[in-house]
Amino acid sequence: MRVIGLDPGLQRTGWGVIDLRGSRLVHVANGVCASEGTALSDRLHSLFLKLSTVFADWAPEAAAVEQTFVNRDGAGTLKLGQARGIVMLVPARAGLAVGEYAPNAVKKCVVGVGHADKRQVDHMVRLHLPGCDPAGPDAADALAVAICHAHHLQSASSVAAAVARAGA
Amino acid sequence: MRVIGLDPGLQRTGWGVIDLRGSRLVHVANGVCASEGTALSDRLHSLFLKLSTVFADWAPEAAAVEQTFVNRDGAGTLKLGQARGIVMLVPARAGLAVGEYAPNAVKKCVVGVGHADKRQVDHMVRLHLPGCDPAGPDAADALAVAICHAHHLQSASSVAAAVARAGA
Repeated sequence: MRVIGLDPGLQRTGWGVIDLRGSRLVHVANGVCASEGTALSDRLHSLFLKLSTVFADWAPEAAAVEQTFVNRDGAGTLKLGQARGIVMLVPARAGLAVGEYAPNAVKKCVVGVGHADKRQVDHMVRLHLPGCDPAGPDAADALAVAICHAHHLQSASSVAAAVARAGA
Repeated sequence: MRVIGLDPGLQRTGWGVIDLRGSRLVHVANGVCASEGTALSDRLHSLFLKLSTVFADWAPEAAAVEQTFVNRDGAGTLKLGQARGIVMLVPARAGLAVGEYAPNAVKKCVVGVGHADKRQVDHMVRLHLPGCDPAGPDAADALAVAICHAHHLQSASSVAAAVARAGA
């Protein structure tokens, strides 16, 4: 099962693709989609095109997006929301359900504590995915979201298997 | 020149298409795209598909979107932002620049005052566009945005013509 994690931002959206092979996680690719243009609509369009190319190139079968931390900065929340709309749309167009995880849940899953800094996330992502070299903090965050979603899918399928055994 | 106005919302996005013929405004069509599905990504995708159909059906040559009022309700701002990302993307994909107008500017342009209620907007939209029957307040707001953008394009082209005459 191929999983993509996404960390949305209007300037830079991080993405990370991993394969879940049995109980093993394998790094496939990661990167950052930097939006281009000055007008907001052009920037959103360039984010849409770049992220659509990532989906076409790597063909993920499951997707998850980091939940947005809502603060009192309304203008910042609106900007991030607009980018997040695009980041939710691209997997939906590919026919995928989109998992959502709070930043603290992602950190707890990958680092073990909910309040880890970017350096710790990068370090633990490299430990979870040997040979992986994240293209910056946004890509590391996206890989952390992918790892979190892969664990979630794994436990969901173990539960389903246990239920099936119990029913048999 | 065919102009589309858009009033974004996650549940309902209003749209209104008008033609600018010389100095006359003519109503073409209006409606509401209601999003379907329960998951956020599905709702955004259904908004994207419905709005793309509106653009394919009516082939607008200019587009404008109502600016979002940012308040202290961060969760509400985020929801609206996500829908607004889709509403900005669709015209950008059609190769159109997207004008943005604050709600007060739209009301000032259409009603004459910045603090008009929905009833007044609906009434004045009907006066500006004889024969037009808006499909609810979101569609009326969208038509008001289209009227505002048409006036803006008209004055911009008058200024350009005056500059050309002065230069000739």
